[in-house]
Amino acid sequence: MPYDLYYWPGLPGRGEFARLVLEAAGVPYRDVARLPEAEGGGVAAMQAFMVGRGHDGPLPFAPPFLVEGELVVSQSAVIAAFLGEHHGLAPEAEAERIFARSIAVTTADLVAEAHDVHHPVGVGLYYEDQKPEATRRAAEFRESRMPKFLGWYEALIARNPHDSGTLVGPDITYADLGLYQVLRGLAYAFPKRMETLRPDYPLAHALADKVDALPRIAAYRASDRATGFNENGIFRHYPELDAA
Amino acid sequence: MPYDLYYWPGLPGRGEFARLVLEAAGVPYRDVARLPEAEGGGVAAMQAFMVGRGHDGPLPFAPPFLVEGELVVSQSAVIAAFLGEHHGLAPEAEAERIFARSIAVTTADLVAEAHDVHHPVGVGLYYEDQKPEATRRAAEFRESRMPKFLGWYEALIARNPHDSGTLVGPDITYADLGLYQVLRGLAYAFPKRMETLRPDYPLAHALADKVDALPRIAAYRASDRATGFNENGIFRHYPELDAA
Repeated sequence: MPYDLYYWPGLPGRGEFARLVLEAAGVPYRDVARLPEAEGGGVAAMQAFMVGRGHDGPLPFAPPFLVEGELVVSQSAVIAAFLGEHHGLAPEAEAERIFARSIAVTTADLVAEAHDVHHPVGVGLYYEDQKPEATRRAAEFRESRMPKFLGWYEALIARNPHDSGTLVGPDITYADLGLYQVLRGLAYAFPKRMETLRPDYPLAHALADKVDALPRIAAYRASDRATGFNENGIFRHYPELDAA
Repeated sequence: MPYDLYYWPGLPGRGEFARLVLEAAGVPYRDVARLPEAEGGGVAAMQAFMVGRGHDGPLPFAPPFLVEGELVVSQSAVIAAFLGEHHGLAPEAEAERIFARSIAVTTADLVAEAHDVHHPVGVGLYYEDQKPEATRRAAEFRESRMPKFLGWYEALIARNPHDSGTLVGPDITYADLGLYQVLRGLAYAFPKRMETLRPDYPLAHALADKVDALPRIAAYRASDRATGFNENGIFRHYPELDAA
């Protein structure tokens, strides 16, 4: 039975951290909210699941979530780890396996912070209603948080005892797919800032290039299953929030 | 060898989600940053570990982190899950085991949102420098986010097929310890709002009471290992941010 992945259609968002693992592993899945309602899909099907209609399983707090039989997994980092560990995209050694989970949750934190740049006052308001606050938060994000996160990824790759060019363990894992997506998102949202910072993080960018060249990832990018970044998503390009 | 837990001294913060599992499981640990420097403790020891001084392991992005031999685990939710799964405080059944992880990460998200109420513009500024923004964010947090999170926990308990009064599975797990800590933190930070909301979430509060009465948790609370909430922490009581 293929996995059912549920996430908002029309944006990569947090769902992409699950989708990339499914795609890189070559695992069959249905992207339920993007399917026609006639096939049991659509946003209505996702919302029905979230309030427990038609099933007895636990309720996810928010999309994305993954369903297979009685299994319900929510939170992008937990889904990515679960899929990576079951489909050959996680380290084998116990200590590395656990640390990969730490990385994925930290990446989810970075994603939340990238989101909060344009929604510092709250998710219930439009960006247009919190622009002054967003301007202040964006400055801190660009100047302090981005280098802190990116420097951490860079240090992990540099210290990896396998010298594999990856974040943890000897091979590409779901943690690396997460970094790849984050670098793409930051480059979309903050192109000027990322151009300034790029030379400081050569290992992280080399790893992202390696992920981008994986045949399954390249095929996914070229397919209509992939959605581009846009201003409904987590990573939004508002030029007034970017600076070198 | 006992675990080494590293977290900022003087506040429960995110470290408490790891500490409660260690305490409830009766597992020996050193709270390193609270130890004297003569015993290899202190904040300096924590900061040295974070920049990789004296070890070859991976670097945690931020406290809390847990170290045992070559194992380094960071992120409160990942630490809590790791400890719970290794020390009898996690569900046994695979689907429940995974969903407990989803709960813990969602709880960490709630903690991050509770923090951002008083730091909406960024962690690099004092609360006093972002009071107007905090007032706006607090209103949304109280009115929209708190009921959303609390209602979700309540629904999980109500739907738990074991009818165990817990969030997932037949017994108390690390996920329940997290809910316990979050309810305490919210009651500290937003006493008026929590009094209004309390009748809506009887199952969640009953579960927290049950956790509070666990002999090891009660003994921990009475010990000098436990730190009270305060205005250096995640959950801060600023009366101007609270309302019924």
